[in-house]
Amino acid sequence: MEIIMKDIKYAPIGVFDSGVGGLTVAREIMRQIPDERIVYFGDTARVPYGSKSQDTIIRFSRQIVHFLRTKGVKAVVVACNTASALALETLQPELDIPIIGVVTPGAKVAAETTVNGKIGVIATESTIESQLYTKVIRSHNPRAQVFGKACPLFCPLVEEGWLKDPVTVEVANRYLEPLLATGIDTLVMGCTHYPLLRGTLHQIMGEKVTLVNPAYETARELKCLLEEEGISNDGMKPVKENMHQFYVSDAANKFRQFANSILPFGVDTTQLIHIEDY
Amino acid sequence: MEIIMKDIKYAPIGVFDSGVGGLTVAREIMRQIPDERIVYFGDTARVPYGSKSQDTIIRFSRQIVHFLRTKGVKAVVVACNTASALALETLQPELDIPIIGVVTPGAKVAAETTVNGKIGVIATESTIESQLYTKVIRSHNPRAQVFGKACPLFCPLVEEGWLKDPVTVEVANRYLEPLLATGIDTLVMGCTHYPLLRGTLHQIMGEKVTLVNPAYETARELKCLLEEEGISNDGMKPVKENMHQFYVSDAANKFRQFANSILPFGVDTTQLIHIEDY
Repeated sequence: MEIIMKDIKYAPIGVFDSGVGGLTVAREIMRQIPDERIVYFGDTARVPYGSKSQDTIIRFSRQIVHFLRTKGVKAVVVACNTASALALETLQPELDIPIIGVVTPGAKVAAETTVNGKIGVIATESTIESQLYTKVIRSHNPRAQVFGKACPLFCPLVEEGWLKDPVTVEVANRYLEPLLATGIDTLVMGCTHYPLLRGTLHQIMGEKVTLVNPAYETARELKCLLEEEGISNDGMKPVKENMHQFYVSDAANKFRQFANSILPFGVDTTQLIHIEDY
Repeated sequence: MEIIMKDIKYAPIGVFDSGVGGLTVAREIMRQIPDERIVYFGDTARVPYGSKSQDTIIRFSRQIVHFLRTKGVKAVVVACNTASALALETLQPELDIPIIGVVTPGAKVAAETTVNGKIGVIATESTIESQLYTKVIRSHNPRAQVFGKACPLFCPLVEEGWLKDPVTVEVANRYLEPLLATGIDTLVMGCTHYPLLRGTLHQIMGEKVTLVNPAYETARELKCLLEEEGISNDGMKPVKENMHQFYVSDAANKFRQFANSILPFGVDTTQLIHIEDY
């Protein structure tokens, strides 16, 4: 039994996203709990998730969790806001290992951060429609007013690399205007791509609005969870293969390019799998 | 034997796209050959195709053609530029019914239209990288110079509904500037979404540049093909069920909304299927 517990301790964490965005969450996990190994899956063949239905997001997420299980993961992080909002609740009871998403940690910290009780959430259409951020924020701060705004052009703009472009500033102005008008003091960046637009978002929202990045809070929650369950990696077992493994459903070169621009080390090998077989 | 030929005549045409864009092609077929029935499939669960790899586009397209065969289609139209550019050549020899794409008809008419021999092609990244437009244009007009430009933000802008928005004009200016500088007199709208931006494109390119819409030419080529093969629908057999059928891989409401804004009749029923099972 002790041997099995030791093995679990050294098992990797499964992290998945619809594509590359979840790498911002993986990066935060690597920074906060550097002894943990990660198996990352990016669903680059079916990206994006943000405009798709709940049934489809659940089906895709279930396949991905099955795949990650074949890699012997000890826990799963849904590093995609849309999948966290639409699929996590369904998948949780199906699993015998811990699974966490990015919405709850992000919502919690927003509920704790706000002073005037007015919180904005920017995310994909499907995440906003799910109302999950609103629900979780209110469960922690019943008086909070939550203003959601879908920003479907942000992901394509980030992927085009126009992070500080005048076009992006104009689009952001357009999307954020109704949120500014509400007088929010806290804004949740509810899609993993959005922290890459932090500069532009900060410029428009001004000094008085706190930007919440759920990636940071998710890594912190994961750390606590592993400690509570007694399955934290103590870093005592030498790692023979790669510390982290990367899998994708489409061999887009973009993945590696993006990964190398985001992560503090080079990603040499990305393995292609047929995710619909899982 | 004659009975079989008669049956084939009244069989529908399969038309597919990564999502809603191919409806612009379906609309053109309905206009030019109104007696033909259409079975349309939009791969809304895996849209977009434009940034994905050839292997993935071939796998997805093969599944879709298998699905359309189960509906007894007599011919297939690949109403997606990316799938036409990346998958058509592979699928053609696998089939015993005619299959045509949108690239060859569009390229042919561009080669015939140009006076100064300078042609621009705007399309998705994958279509531009495939160089298929250049190859087909040159096979018809060996002296032609072809200038390709990927415009990845056009589809998201169309789907956001910002057809004549200042942001869209600015993005179009940015993308078209290098093409304007080359002195092209013909511009192929090499993605089915782009004809919806025709006004903006025309405004930027000016009177002297002819915009080519491959959808129009594709419907014309389909008409000729059906006549040559002797399988045109003569409209003599009463249609008992719906004239046209619509299938999607994700039940996005967007599909019906978009379809209703594009087609000259209301689309009431859109059936959801699991395309990965084909």
